[in-house]
Amino acid sequence: MPKLDLSKAPVKTGSVYPEPYASQMVGRSSQRLGEQAGLTQFGVNIITLEPGAVASLRHWHLREDEFAMVLEGALTLVEDDGEAEMQPGDCAAWKAGVANGHRFVNRSEALARFLVVGTKVEEDVCTYVDVDMKVHISGAQNTFTYHDGSDWAGPRDLPSGGN
Amino acid sequence: MPKLDLSKAPVKTGSVYPEPYASQMVGRSSQRLGEQAGLTQFGVNIITLEPGAVASLRHWHLREDEFAMVLEGALTLVEDDGEAEMQPGDCAAWKAGVANGHRFVNRSEALARFLVVGTKVEEDVCTYVDVDMKVHISGAQNTFTYHDGSDWAGPRDLPSGGN
Repeated sequence: MPKLDLSKAPVKTGSVYPEPYASQMVGRSSQRLGEQAGLTQFGVNIITLEPGAVASLRHWHLREDEFAMVLEGALTLVEDDGEAEMQPGDCAAWKAGVANGHRFVNRSEALARFLVVGTKVEEDVCTYVDVDMKVHISGAQNTFTYHDGSDWAGPRDLPSGGN
Repeated sequence: MPKLDLSKAPVKTGSVYPEPYASQMVGRSSQRLGEQAGLTQFGVNIITLEPGAVASLRHWHLREDEFAMVLEGALTLVEDDGEAEMQPGDCAAWKAGVANGHRFVNRSEALARFLVVGTKVEEDVCTYVDVDMKVHISGAQNTFTYHDGSDWAGPRDLPSGGN
């Protein structure tokens, strides 16, 4: 039966980010429901954030549509043009290629969860807007660079005047 | 801000099915959140079912992955191999091309809602397993045929021994 047994979806912690950013993801975990169901066209994850945790660096995708719905607790959505408080049932979506860096932050005292859906594309670029880093995704391979495309070799200041 | 205002997502009733099946969808309505947000790679809809309503004919997609999460109320998921009772938070998913006809039915006395995500593909075939009909989807065009591919011209009995 395609009804999913969420208790059997592995809980994944850790981060694909290099340090020092990986350590900033402490308190975040995810369950990959789409993979559990054998879906290949889009990913469906439930992200759990402990109090104080963040879901990601603030980012946007070049080729991947994203959709999120808050399931539990209270989350703050942080974007280029401000912040929005979100409750269970609240939804947000980001069209591929729109350069609006976004992330969820749990500023509450309780655990929070959200569902996130993203297209699985063979080639993508994800740009982090608060740090000088982006990742080039090709199949299962992630290659981190600075915004100017040169190899990433540790944190450095963003160029003044923009990112 | 990409936070969606669900109160502004148009509520759509009616059905693309020909009669007599369209009338069987009374009590079903949908909100197209993905389109409201400008997403093009997958659709995200919230389907509302009044007591007694069904979400669709029982069906499966040839080329489109599907994912659903119950948001409110109680729903019954009906599939080839039986039924599952589903509560808010319960999820189900169907990989493209797996011939397992499925639909949600609201057998409760209260309104129920679920979120459904499906890949937007240019060409698809959706097969209805309880009636002799399938639909060939090409862009925005729907062409209904019998299971044998001949033009649909009204309900007829399923061939004995299978569909």
